[in-house]
Amino acid sequence: MKWRCVVCGYIHEGDNPPEACPVCGVDSSNFVRVEEEPKQDENSKDDSVKNAEAAMTSPAQTGLSPEEKIVKAVQSISYGLFIITAAANGKDNGQAANTCFQITSDPVQIAIGINKKNFTHELIMQSGKFGISVLDQNGHDLVRRFGYRSGREFDKFDGIKAHRGSSGILLLDEVLTTVEAEVANSMDTGTHTLFLGRVTAAEVRGSGEPMTYAYFRKTK
Amino acid sequence: MKWRCVVCGYIHEGDNPPEACPVCGVDSSNFVRVEEEPKQDENSKDDSVKNAEAAMTSPAQTGLSPEEKIVKAVQSISYGLFIITAAANGKDNGQAANTCFQITSDPVQIAIGINKKNFTHELIMQSGKFGISVLDQNGHDLVRRFGYRSGREFDKFDGIKAHRGSSGILLLDEVLTTVEAEVANSMDTGTHTLFLGRVTAAEVRGSGEPMTYAYFRKTK
Repeated sequence: MKWRCVVCGYIHEGDNPPEACPVCGVDSSNFVRVEEEPKQDENSKDDSVKNAEAAMTSPAQTGLSPEEKIVKAVQSISYGLFIITAAANGKDNGQAANTCFQITSDPVQIAIGINKKNFTHELIMQSGKFGISVLDQNGHDLVRRFGYRSGREFDKFDGIKAHRGSSGILLLDEVLTTVEAEVANSMDTGTHTLFLGRVTAAEVRGSGEPMTYAYFRKTK
Repeated sequence: MKWRCVVCGYIHEGDNPPEACPVCGVDSSNFVRVEEEPKQDENSKDDSVKNAEAAMTSPAQTGLSPEEKIVKAVQSISYGLFIITAAANGKDNGQAANTCFQITSDPVQIAIGINKKNFTHELIMQSGKFGISVLDQNGHDLVRRFGYRSGREFDKFDGIKAHRGSSGILLLDEVLTTVEAEVANSMDTGTHTLFLGRVTAAEVRGSGEPMTYAYFRKTK
């Protein structure tokens, strides 16, 4: 069985997707199952493959199954890319994430989606707060560093320029902006927790363009 | 008092931000208060203005207040642009929105943030489902149409090409993809409700690039 990382395109073989993508480091929820097809040249492809490929560029998309349409449709949602950080009991950690968005402006509240298996999730649950470092378009190495391997056995901040914000959480130096938030509410969504955070402090550190999920995929 | 729409830059004067932006139609939560300053040429600006402007491009940003830093930092979060639709009791409505993102992949669940004052909010609460039409980069007129005025007294779909999805909700024809979802959970966040939706169906209708919030602001 093959699984493709929707962030960077890495193909993993196995019964299940990997816990984290070994290339760009995003968690297992970013893997989609790839339909296996025999290797063949363009001319020998059977009609079902040709139809599926034709459907990828046609409005009707008749060649896709309902499940494939769902995967493709949700992939058309746009995101930024962020390093979410947290600290508790003398431990710091961070992870790459794409689900971060403002929900209300009075008060300013943001929401993030974090996989329950991640060390960062554990630290947010313990401390009731989190930090967001908004990457600029030079943040590729930071995505790889903070996505790769679990922070349970590896200090992801080793050699990375970072500073503590007013909440005590480590924030990255070389990013566009940073935001610190206190958890105001949370929702169990199954594999992930959706945390609602009330923003307590922010920094504007750079003046470039934000890194988007789409830009990272194009330029990784 | 002046308020600026963070989506399109429209300036509103009044004690409060407008219910909806008259240019791009997003709701009042997208307005930020603008500090008024006397009109003057570049040379006669006082030091505080010069410092604030210098700070906009410097890492330290010492010229911004904590509140201004928060506004600027949350503006660096990237989004797509969507038309969220709903139907209940024979009524259809839709609104432009930027907060839509996937939260889990097994099952596929998405979350949206909707202002409680909006008619679409009422219809989602009544029906327990919603539709998402993911705009492509030609969707400017759809943002204006579905943002402008409340659907309580105006049929936003009049003259717009749309079709009913399997859930009975109207979805737009000329978009990149559509998604239909059943509300699995919701969170009250104050001015907005965060709806978690389990995806029940999707369509792939176009092959262009998705409209992002940043692209809309640049090209409106």
